[in-house]
Amino acid sequence: MAPEIDHLIKIFSFLPGLGERSARRIVLHLLSQKQTKMESLLIAVQQVLSKVDKCRLCGNLDASVPICSICKNHNRDHQCLCVVENISDLWAIERTKSYNGMYFVLGGALSAIDGVGPGELRINVLTQQCKDNGYAEVILALSSTLNGQTTTHYIREHLTPIVPKVTELARGVPIGGELDYLDDGTLITALIARSGF
Amino acid sequence: MAPEIDHLIKIFSFLPGLGERSARRIVLHLLSQKQTKMESLLIAVQQVLSKVDKCRLCGNLDASVPICSICKNHNRDHQCLCVVENISDLWAIERTKSYNGMYFVLGGALSAIDGVGPGELRINVLTQQCKDNGYAEVILALSSTLNGQTTTHYIREHLTPIVPKVTELARGVPIGGELDYLDDGTLITALIARSGF
Repeated sequence: MAPEIDHLIKIFSFLPGLGERSARRIVLHLLSQKQTKMESLLIAVQQVLSKVDKCRLCGNLDASVPICSICKNHNRDHQCLCVVENISDLWAIERTKSYNGMYFVLGGALSAIDGVGPGELRINVLTQQCKDNGYAEVILALSSTLNGQTTTHYIREHLTPIVPKVTELARGVPIGGELDYLDDGTLITALIARSGF
Repeated sequence: MAPEIDHLIKIFSFLPGLGERSARRIVLHLLSQKQTKMESLLIAVQQVLSKVDKCRLCGNLDASVPICSICKNHNRDHQCLCVVENISDLWAIERTKSYNGMYFVLGGALSAIDGVGPGELRINVLTQQCKDNGYAEVILALSSTLNGQTTTHYIREHLTPIVPKVTELARGVPIGGELDYLDDGTLITALIARSGF
């Protein structure tokens, strides 16, 4: 096989969710319509590479840099900040179209095993930003995992003296979830946090 | 989300085996290490796009065009031709390192439903090539599907008067296959074609 094709297959096979077989299939598919599919991929990658960068304020990826279109948007609520672990979480919340405030991307969660400390997550930047901007509310929208909850706890301790209202996402039975298939932890949390009609 | 990112995600999501969620994950992964991963992908795509093309003789994809490195190789057996449906089949046989002849890529199999006739598969080119080159053997290494077998039958009828030896791949129990899990068709074929020790 040509080394050029082999090299491209290798690059694809290292992408998340792909292996050598699926990478081979993708490269063959691209090569089958070289002039259309492969070239449009090339142009799209070039565009992203030249235009997209991280927002200096929130950490989101956008073509409108150094400040992204969310941070620049005057129609959004600049008094509310939503702290998320990753950009994919920011995108997930944006897709719901039910939040109209600002964001702060940590870039991960605290993890003793992976050696991720408060310094890696820019938590002091977050604290300083909260001091400077005087947010009315900070929502900690981190994962409901051990690391996510540790991070939530750590950030809450730092922000409670500065921000009037620090909240976190509700926990309970997911929409469409059948009780029989739910894990015990979620069921217990949902029972404890039960609400009246 | 930036339209550039959105567009790249869309392109990835149309690749075989990928959906919107996996495409998003891949693009975020590429963006997380823009200067290394994304740029190496760009360069690899550029290289393939500028150098790789179809071999004029066998239909294989190679950087050494118009005649690919297999067709050019004088250490290979130019008296033996292996007919395959797709380039991925050619690569699969090459990976085994147990075949040393030439190839001919049909580009698919006859299919009445998909409207693929003998004209689409360059079968007359194959017949002409067999007449001109005087191969000692032609191996029909097509899939063991209905379409593959129809194509095998069709080509065999055309080649038997021209080529001294037309063969097909052996059919039977795959290596490591448990009889209990095998389909009836394979088991019947294996029983009929049983061999002595």
